[in-house]
Amino acid sequence: MTDPAVHARLIEIVGDRNALRAEADTAPYLREWRDLYVGKTPMVLRPGGREEVAEILKVANEAGLRIVPQGGNTGLVGGQIPDDSATEIVLSLSRMNRVRDIDADGFSMTVEAGCTLQAIHDAADAADRLFPLTLGSQGSCQIGGNIATNAGGTAVLAYGNTRDLVLGLEVVLPDGRIWEGLRSLRKDNTGYDLKQMFIGSEGTLGIITAAVLKLFPRPRAQDVAFVALASPRDALALFSTARARAGAMLTGFELMPRIGVEFAVRHLPGARDPLATAAPWYVLIELSSGTEGADGGNPTRDLMETILGEAYEAGLVEDAALAESVQQAADFWHIRHGMSEVQREEGGSIKHDVSVPVAAVPDFLDEAIAAVEALVPGCRPVPFGHMGDGNIHFNVSQPVDADKAAYLARWDEMNAVVHGIVARYGGSISAEHGIGRLKRDLLGTVKSEVEMDLMRRVKAAFDPNGILNPGRIL
Amino acid sequence: MTDPAVHARLIEIVGDRNALRAEADTAPYLREWRDLYVGKTPMVLRPGGREEVAEILKVANEAGLRIVPQGGNTGLVGGQIPDDSATEIVLSLSRMNRVRDIDADGFSMTVEAGCTLQAIHDAADAADRLFPLTLGSQGSCQIGGNIATNAGGTAVLAYGNTRDLVLGLEVVLPDGRIWEGLRSLRKDNTGYDLKQMFIGSEGTLGIITAAVLKLFPRPRAQDVAFVALASPRDALALFSTARARAGAMLTGFELMPRIGVEFAVRHLPGARDPLATAAPWYVLIELSSGTEGADGGNPTRDLMETILGEAYEAGLVEDAALAESVQQAADFWHIRHGMSEVQREEGGSIKHDVSVPVAAVPDFLDEAIAAVEALVPGCRPVPFGHMGDGNIHFNVSQPVDADKAAYLARWDEMNAVVHGIVARYGGSISAEHGIGRLKRDLLGTVKSEVEMDLMRRVKAAFDPNGILNPGRIL
Repeated sequence: MTDPAVHARLIEIVGDRNALRAEADTAPYLREWRDLYVGKTPMVLRPGGREEVAEILKVANEAGLRIVPQGGNTGLVGGQIPDDSATEIVLSLSRMNRVRDIDADGFSMTVEAGCTLQAIHDAADAADRLFPLTLGSQGSCQIGGNIATNAGGTAVLAYGNTRDLVLGLEVVLPDGRIWEGLRSLRKDNTGYDLKQMFIGSEGTLGIITAAVLKLFPRPRAQDVAFVALASPRDALALFSTARARAGAMLTGFELMPRIGVEFAVRHLPGARDPLATAAPWYVLIELSSGTEGADGGNPTRDLMETILGEAYEAGLVEDAALAESVQQAADFWHIRHGMSEVQREEGGSIKHDVSVPVAAVPDFLDEAIAAVEALVPGCRPVPFGHMGDGNIHFNVSQPVDADKAAYLARWDEMNAVVHGIVARYGGSISAEHGIGRLKRDLLGTVKSEVEMDLMRRVKAAFDPNGILNPGRIL
Repeated sequence: MTDPAVHARLIEIVGDRNALRAEADTAPYLREWRDLYVGKTPMVLRPGGREEVAEILKVANEAGLRIVPQGGNTGLVGGQIPDDSATEIVLSLSRMNRVRDIDADGFSMTVEAGCTLQAIHDAADAADRLFPLTLGSQGSCQIGGNIATNAGGTAVLAYGNTRDLVLGLEVVLPDGRIWEGLRSLRKDNTGYDLKQMFIGSEGTLGIITAAVLKLFPRPRAQDVAFVALASPRDALALFSTARARAGAMLTGFELMPRIGVEFAVRHLPGARDPLATAAPWYVLIELSSGTEGADGGNPTRDLMETILGEAYEAGLVEDAALAESVQQAADFWHIRHGMSEVQREEGGSIKHDVSVPVAAVPDFLDEAIAAVEALVPGCRPVPFGHMGDGNIHFNVSQPVDADKAAYLARWDEMNAVVHGIVARYGGSISAEHGIGRLKRDLLGTVKSEVEMDLMRRVKAAFDPNGILNPGRIL
């Protein structure tokens, strides 16, 4: 299908050992962890620097060869896996993994795309700074992929999405030119803010090769509470109180249902129910402070007690446990972070990564739970997630003893029901995971023709030959 | 020059009384407050709603008629003033000034483009919420213009630029189609984030007619200190300490030189020097907290004392005054907010709205002050501004008794010197005021050809006929 001379030229650019072709070598790049997407490729290129990326794209653009950029291969919508045509070439950024610079006084750091999120956390820690982006996959996901997908996670409430954490980008354009946007300025109003188009574009407009990230002061004091409640409505009232009281010190507000905690206790090594009596819903609250407080006081502990005291008096809270040690706080978070993986032990799970306006979360949950229970009697909704951002992972486990395959065959049908409710609340069908290939066909159903047209114009302006991640998003 | 039937059609759309043509009526729209730009127009259209805006643009796009959108006419780079061809039509958003909705639990509000920033502050206050954008011009500037120019101000350190405060936009495109992007979601990864292109595009890509804004908890405790220092280097060290100690509670860190405080004391009604003895430099520090603190304690006061105590011990601080009342805090801010206008009383002032990485501010100031003093002996640099964002208003007053016009004639020459130093630090020649017409010719000197090409492609994708604010930015 492709001129062998073009392939030879690509191999020459990265060197033979960095152009993987043997099946055993390419296999890890062609399959994502849930096995939802498995693809084929003539080769996986592992460039060692931006000049090699630029050369690859120049050759590909001239030859009309399609390129699929890949970071840590942790994406959940199939954006990073080639299709099964065996013509799409995978471009892995993993060799470009240097932390180039840390500016502690300026609260920024410069990193290459292939740095794992964990390596970035470690480097920031070593400089007594915080890089707040926090994901379950942080040991393997790479910052280039985090930026290309505008990753969310559990720290969005206080620090924003990945978009909000990026000061500058270096990007190789589809025609091989390099955009030098590696700025570390807090304020810069010189024309269109081009980096915003690359952030969240899922590798369809350019390949991010490096970034300048914002750093923050490291919290000096932190407190975590695990709180039992009767309903998401009470959780919303508690959120409103906590946010108004704590302001920027409220760094986590995560919702979990009873069944999710039961799954965790059953399947997650080391997990224990933090509370003695069961409740229908739980919230994990985290408060952080940049200061230890005067006279040995603990500003986050005092504040947490104030918030929970008010909530008790208002009848919002049934019971609560305050973590008495760093280990206990980690145990509470362990339950929350394990909530996705434990669902695998309970059979098939149909997933929805949705958001609605924060104040609409209780009504959305009432309606969506009733709707899926009517659609599949006996199914077990396990909605959990970032209540403070309105982002609920509305996952639904199969009925006990049902046939997994038959249940999963109803994926699209259940999606349609849930997304219909999301739409009525002005919500999003992909709050943090992106569109990729998984939701590409849905995009036109939730966006106006005007918006689709603008996106297509942007794509055509940046990638006129359509070589970068074709069939993803658009 | 233009078909009279087209003008008649435009008048019909908004109604005769909202199509201003008499010189006395149009005059306020054709001149900005420093008289740097004065233009001509056949008419000023004041549409009453987005449908009228859409109709106007449809007609203009078909007729190739150029449109200059205007908010509160407080822009500083001439973007909102028509040129002197008398063909550009001014479209004022000022009649579209309703606050449509406030969602206190969801921490958001929906407003029309013509709302003044002050009206938005008042509405947020009434709902016990904070909209943090803070500008000297907030009594007259309008939120549509703030968004179109990505306004900065004194609250950027803690809350970000206007870009960071926008959840959704409603935009009329140059061809009259309406993009319905008025979402209030905290997380939404469904394709390209189109609103980012309109924010900061200075009216060249579409006309913003409404927006959903983020709200924040109102601070419950606040403390302001006025601190004397020997140098910007000490100010940087103090910033680093304050940010690491206070984290998100550090909501203001503004640098001022001695001469600026002297100008304020001399010319600003009610201004008094907060400190008994003179120092070369000053910093205004503001700390805010969402909570009052337990047991009658004051968390911001305790923290301010801790920070200043450490700074004294490290020899960074020469003297400091803590505001003992809300009035005294306002007095300190009054000096800072008056720093621009008092320079008018001292003759001509050549201005630079620049930013550099935060840690480079001291070196930049050393070099830039020496360079302008070498260029114009006797000139009086008054650099001040948002040190915590690396954004310095590097204004230079004329030598005492010099000829104002002769001094101002050296504007471009001095700009070139200062911008050259900015470039060496990877800085920006327009940190917060934008490009407009004032810096249009400079843009190509500080951007690569790759970046200019991408911007032109974006412009062509959104506004192929080039009817919206032509000659601004690009």
